[in-house]
Amino acid sequence: MDLSIDKGILQKAQARAIDTRRDIHKHAELGLIEFRTAALVANRLNELGLEVSVGKEVMDESSVYGLPPDEAVAQGFARAIEEGADRALIERMRGGCTGIVGVLDTGRPGPTLALRADMDALPIVEHGGRDHVPAREGFRSVHEGVMHACGHDAHTAVGLAVAEVLAANKDKLSGKIKFIFQPAEEGGRGSLPMTTRGVVDDVDHFIAIHVGVGVPSGVLCPAVTGHLASEKWDVSFEGKAAHAGGWPEQGANAVLAASNAVVSLYGISRHREGRTRINVGVINGGSGRNVIADKASLIMELRGETQDILDYLTRRGEAVIKGAALAQDVSANIQVVGKTTTAGSDAGLARMIADACTTVDGLQLRLDPHITGGSEDATFMMHRVQQRGGDAVYCAIGSDLPSGHHTPRFDIQEADLGPAIEALAKSLLSLSQ
Amino acid sequence: MDLSIDKGILQKAQARAIDTRRDIHKHAELGLIEFRTAALVANRLNELGLEVSVGKEVMDESSVYGLPPDEAVAQGFARAIEEGADRALIERMRGGCTGIVGVLDTGRPGPTLALRADMDALPIVEHGGRDHVPAREGFRSVHEGVMHACGHDAHTAVGLAVAEVLAANKDKLSGKIKFIFQPAEEGGRGSLPMTTRGVVDDVDHFIAIHVGVGVPSGVLCPAVTGHLASEKWDVSFEGKAAHAGGWPEQGANAVLAASNAVVSLYGISRHREGRTRINVGVINGGSGRNVIADKASLIMELRGETQDILDYLTRRGEAVIKGAALAQDVSANIQVVGKTTTAGSDAGLARMIADACTTVDGLQLRLDPHITGGSEDATFMMHRVQQRGGDAVYCAIGSDLPSGHHTPRFDIQEADLGPAIEALAKSLLSLSQ
Amino acid sequence: MDLSIDKGILQKAQARAIDTRRDIHKHAELGLIEFRTAALVANRLNELGLEVSVGKEVMDESSVYGLPPDEAVAQGFARAIEEGADRALIERMRGGCTGIVGVLDTGRPGPTLALRADMDALPIVEHGGRDHVPAREGFRSVHEGVMHACGHDAHTAVGLAVAEVLAANKDKLSGKIKFIFQPAEEGGRGSLPMTTRGVVDDVDHFIAIHVGVGVPSGVLCPAVTGHLASEKWDVSFEGKAAHAGGWPEQGANAVLAASNAVVSLYGISRHREGRTRINVGVINGGSGRNVIADKASLIMELRGETQDILDYLTRRGEAVIKGAALAQDVSANIQVVGKTTTAGSDAGLARMIADACTTVDGLQLRLDPHITGGSEDATFMMHRVQQRGGDAVYCAIGSDLPSGHHTPRFDIQEADLGPAIEALAKSLLSLSQ
Amino acid sequence: MDLSIDKGILQKAQARAIDTRRDIHKHAELGLIEFRTAALVANRLNELGLEVSVGKEVMDESSVYGLPPDEAVAQGFARAIEEGADRALIERMRGGCTGIVGVLDTGRPGPTLALRADMDALPIVEHGGRDHVPAREGFRSVHEGVMHACGHDAHTAVGLAVAEVLAANKDKLSGKIKFIFQPAEEGGRGSLPMTTRGVVDDVDHFIAIHVGVGVPSGVLCPAVTGHLASEKWDVSFEGKAAHAGGWPEQGANAVLAASNAVVSLYGISRHREGRTRINVGVINGGSGRNVIADKASLIMELRGETQDILDYLTRRGEAVIKGAALAQDVSANIQVVGKTTTAGSDAGLARMIADACTTVDGLQLRLDPHITGGSEDATFMMHRVQQRGGDAVYCAIGSDLPSGHHTPRFDIQEADLGPAIEALAKSLLSLSQ
Repeated sequence: MDLSIDKGILQKAQARAIDTRRDIHKHAELGLIEFRTAALVANRLNELGLEVSVGKEVMDESSVYGLPPDEAVAQGFARAIEEGADRALIERMRGGCTGIVGVLDTGRPGPTLALRADMDALPIVEHGGRDHVPAREGFRSVHEGVMHACGHDAHTAVGLAVAEVLAANKDKLSGKIKFIFQPAEEGGRGSLPMTTRGVVDDVDHFIAIHVGVGVPSGVLCPAVTGHLASEKWDVSFEGKAAHAGGWPEQGANAVLAASNAVVSLYGISRHREGRTRINVGVINGGSGRNVIADKASLIMELRGETQDILDYLTRRGEAVIKGAALAQDVSANIQVVGKTTTAGSDAGLARMIADACTTVDGLQLRLDPHITGGSEDATFMMHRVQQRGGDAVYCAIGSDLPSGHHTPRFDIQEADLGPAIEALAKSLLSLSQ
Repeated sequence: MDLSIDKGILQKAQARAIDTRRDIHKHAELGLIEFRTAALVANRLNELGLEVSVGKEVMDESSVYGLPPDEAVAQGFARAIEEGADRALIERMRGGCTGIVGVLDTGRPGPTLALRADMDALPIVEHGGRDHVPAREGFRSVHEGVMHACGHDAHTAVGLAVAEVLAANKDKLSGKIKFIFQPAEEGGRGSLPMTTRGVVDDVDHFIAIHVGVGVPSGVLCPAVTGHLASEKWDVSFEGKAAHAGGWPEQGANAVLAASNAVVSLYGISRHREGRTRINVGVINGGSGRNVIADKASLIMELRGETQDILDYLTRRGEAVIKGAALAQDVSANIQVVGKTTTAGSDAGLARMIADACTTVDGLQLRLDPHITGGSEDATFMMHRVQQRGGDAVYCAIGSDLPSGHHTPRFDIQEADLGPAIEALAKSLLSLSQ
Repeated sequence: MDLSIDKGILQKAQARAIDTRRDIHKHAELGLIEFRTAALVANRLNELGLEVSVGKEVMDESSVYGLPPDEAVAQGFARAIEEGADRALIERMRGGCTGIVGVLDTGRPGPTLALRADMDALPIVEHGGRDHVPAREGFRSVHEGVMHACGHDAHTAVGLAVAEVLAANKDKLSGKIKFIFQPAEEGGRGSLPMTTRGVVDDVDHFIAIHVGVGVPSGVLCPAVTGHLASEKWDVSFEGKAAHAGGWPEQGANAVLAASNAVVSLYGISRHREGRTRINVGVINGGSGRNVIADKASLIMELRGETQDILDYLTRRGEAVIKGAALAQDVSANIQVVGKTTTAGSDAGLARMIADACTTVDGLQLRLDPHITGGSEDATFMMHRVQQRGGDAVYCAIGSDLPSGHHTPRFDIQEADLGPAIEALAKSLLSLSQ
Repeated sequence: MDLSIDKGILQKAQARAIDTRRDIHKHAELGLIEFRTAALVANRLNELGLEVSVGKEVMDESSVYGLPPDEAVAQGFARAIEEGADRALIERMRGGCTGIVGVLDTGRPGPTLALRADMDALPIVEHGGRDHVPAREGFRSVHEGVMHACGHDAHTAVGLAVAEVLAANKDKLSGKIKFIFQPAEEGGRGSLPMTTRGVVDDVDHFIAIHVGVGVPSGVLCPAVTGHLASEKWDVSFEGKAAHAGGWPEQGANAVLAASNAVVSLYGISRHREGRTRINVGVINGGSGRNVIADKASLIMELRGETQDILDYLTRRGEAVIKGAALAQDVSANIQVVGKTTTAGSDAGLARMIADACTTVDGLQLRLDPHITGGSEDATFMMHRVQQRGGDAVYCAIGSDLPSGHHTPRFDIQEADLGPAIEALAKSLLSLSQ
């Protein structure tokens, strides 16, 4: 098995990855409106000679949850064009369909492999101080209030770099390699529509990547597990306003219903089979001090260690919300705006990756399960691949973080990207043969 | 108008009323099982030559709420027989139909009058100390745990005494006089079935009597008003038991549902049009510390200043209970075990009564409305009479009470009964002419 | 007693009142920042030769609740200057001290009278359609989002007009007449600081005025009563944020505490002595779906039929909020941002007013109590006057309203102001003599 | 190492264990009043020549929680005497000190071993049908309503049989062997007072035994783990009664406080580090429908996967209860009536036991951790031994159960006791040498 890669090719791709990461970081875009980023990805994959599919070709529009308001979509679209995105290309991405798949098809019989990266940023105001590298080095987000605070900029850059290296080594490969760039991992929105569309139905070996997540610099861990299955709900209550002093009995109190729901939601029972999590992160309701509130809303999430536990939580949560509404004669509406599931990393595939990476300088492989308490929608793809007989890993690219994920000073060590690119390229090379 | 009453007849009836009151006090019986008391009343009315109707003749059995458990009924029945009640008579009173109506029919054209008394006692252990007259004088309740702590013993005795006086003056009367003895005023259960059965449908002038209620000795007040309309509910929740440590998710928690209902019931909104009252007096639920409770119950009541307000409260209360049940996947059942309504005392009738009582020694008439915060089911009869064009008063027989209604040391001043008997007899005499 | 008023003087004042009302309407200002309005009032009173006191001279700054944020104050201040207010004058009104008192001192011995008007507008966007007179006639509020939707513009105009008429009839008067222009009646903020400062301590007869409030055009009703005592609270909860998926036990959940408080606040018991009202009109809390909320707030009010009932509600409300906070390990802070009390209209004074108004053409006097379910902080002044032996009325200037108080289409019939000005002038003239 | 045991001695002890088990089963006694059982144990240990300590010699009286009511203690005491217990002996056990320790001291240097059994039964009415072996064979509990439904009868019998076997093999042993018989494992009450008294302070190897717990017949598993740390609370709320219709504001509502506490207790947050369990199994409160309740109580428990998690739950639970009380102006009292902690089985000791049991016919040893979701207070002893440098296991004696623990048809396979007795005797023999 020839896992050698020309050093020049590799170094060029590694260097370019840094530039790409900084470019994307500087032009951070929120989930489902990553028009500029997706256009950049599509163009690069095209240049590399891959077959590129875009928009509804790779996403089931009816499975898209939590699309931003029309105005935000329009703004994001216009801005992407201003910043150079091709209008014809991004027109194809409307409706939240900003996913891209590039296929490197060798034409030779062999396995189908997939590498998955995500592209979206977060609604966070990026720190502007000199101690924050992106600010100091000039690639702080120019989209004020939107920030790559979870490293997806790096994931996209790494995915493109690996594609570049492998495209240059196509003759050593067999089968197909799919490079999947999903939108909107935040909020759990981008993966399910791609999975539903069948993007991973033919995949034998699947690798999802994520930088950081508690793994230190110098370590690659293709054994991340324990993602909680989750649903994100936006709940609205609608009652009837009334003057609280004059005609209190004529109101149907949406604030009272919502408050009752909050109290009861946290009281949903624990589950024998594993962890549960319930949170109402945000409550808003009412219009004036002396008016019985006719409107209230909750922004909440439910998480379970297994899909069964999550199903239990959603069933119970629905009952609690309906009951709280009924008690106050108000109506309640639950909108599911995001979903993730669970999926473990396969030890066999992790081992194969480790075997392929022994020649990567300065990189340590960790194979014992690394448990995370978070949620991640790449699990839909992993679950689908495993369900159809393939195997999958969630692979952490270790990096010492100056500040935690989802914080204004979040940053990665760019030096960690090079070895990861080499390792992933060699792993895919190995799996392909 | 001849309102004179032979002094000897009056004094005999007054003296007998004390004996009767003490006899009934000593043999206190709970609502809907006042078999002995009702038999005593029926016999006395028969002796006086009145037409006596009993049981289902004067009560609509299907309107009887809150019948005691079978065992309690059987015990009460057996005890009444032991204490001398006629079995054939009280057999007719089964099914909670312990009401009696005696009609003094003059055969002459004239108005139909009604005097209403109630007969039931309360589940209270009577005080046994020397400072409590019934104990000292030997007529403390021999039915341990049942006590006439609201004066209904006196009402029944007064009703019989007035019947005795008027039966002896039949030739001065015209029309009909109905003496209505209702069961189960406590809990609001006895009046509605008699009203529904039509007992007051032909009544032109109606007088309900009550001793005490805040009116002092020496005063008669045929102007009591402000009784709150009420419903008494027994609510049961049924869920599913589960081991709280092992399989918590398999339970459907009845204690949690009931607790939630309690919290929300008190939060039902105030009403523009008047007073509201909500109380969950008793909660019970669960079987063991480590078992998720499958059963819970509430004993509660709702009261409103008007029937409309009460209807609002019952509608809202039902929604709250159903909502709390739905939220916990348990079922809820509301059993209505008592009802009262509202009805004001008519000023015209009160005035006529006052005019008839000017010759009663040592009795002061009070005609300004005396407002009570309690509930009373004679209001169903009053409301019915008023609705059909008649008039009605709720008449307080003032008495200085050593201890409040519904307390173990409750007692009345027996000396207050004589003037009341005279006053009521004269009032009916006057109204009849 | 000479109650004649020169017709020319009266008509001039009446006509000017319309202009003044429209000017104030067009330049509506929120409570405690009515700089332009107060300056206009002060200037007019000066022109009339009254002794004018302003700012801290007539308001106890330490009793000012619910001052708008600094930025809003600064904006309001700057705008008033742009619109012509005298800077030196309004500098004296800083700190929420926008109240004005003008005294017409006859120098002759006699009673001290007071007429009170309020000056503030509401945060409502005024309707702009042709069917809305202010829009059609060109005096719709130019301060977008601020609107005189409760008629205080008319109150101020009437107050000035009455001052104008009486200043021209000074020789017929004796004693003193105080014209009190209070800020911030909305939210119950302006009256208490003026009362505390002693503004009405020497007043023998006090008249507060209000247009509309359910009284029709052509009627003057100096017998409004039943204002509920109230407190307005802004409550904030502060806990500790934590990642809801990862470290849920590390949070101190402010949204949960606030929700619990809402549920329990509505459950505060009814009161024997009269009406109670509780409302949490607005709830807000939390920052993100997956973050345990560290902040939440309530905007709420408590009202009672008497000051004692209100005191009961505030004591219980405080306990509920502290308990809810304690249960969740969060802190709670209650800020009182408004207060009103109760005070009835004195029948004797109302009668004197009625007697003085018999010669006012087309005006009907109504003296039976007109009960309102709202709250009003003029009650502090009324209560103070009554407490010190004077008498007071709350006087409704009837007007048929096209749309209710506090709505975007609220308007009055300007034709109702003229007779009211005449009636009030004659009343004060009469009371002064 | 000589692990041979004379077959005759063993068989005699095994046969006697069945008789003992049936005797104890028939005379089932509740925790802390196991007077007859403890007397039986003490007598048997005396007969075997062990040093026997009783009552306060082996229990710290001040650590005894949840002692039954005086009446129940007196009844249990009298019944034990009726059934033959020695009065002088059981007098020493008053105050809940029904624990017994028998020491087999070889006088030779060597390790100190301990075998722990528990003796108490449950408040369950035992099934009486022919399909239930104890009923069919005539040893159904004659103490109606008290039943050995968790196998503690078997534990005590096994403990005594092992003592009998080893006493007969004293010359093969060195060091000391302690036979610990604890009261009141149910409710977590008996172990802590013995541990606090120092009973296991000198123990090097500790074995607690339990029949069943999910392990099948034919298997011995000295590797049970995962017991949840727990506290059992009896909570009482005390407020102020008031007439709900008349003076609702004068009450301090204990039912409302308790209900609020229930709702909030279930809402205590999950914990990152492991399982939590919260249950309010029983709620009771109030005295009458129309009385605001002055009393309410909760019977509840908290469990956590670790002692730290339990400490978190108790801290939070206390805050919730205090907050709910504060909100309603009532007082709350938490009485801790039971406690357990966590402690894992040591793999080394389990291995030693397995090695000692290879010659036990028909017994399979299971050494992989067997996780239980329940709680067990032997963990206090295990934890103490481990803390002082010794090792400990919780050893399941497998048995196929016809019905689950704590059910009316619970029973064990008596045939499983013989091999267990042999295995435990050999294990202690081996550990002693």
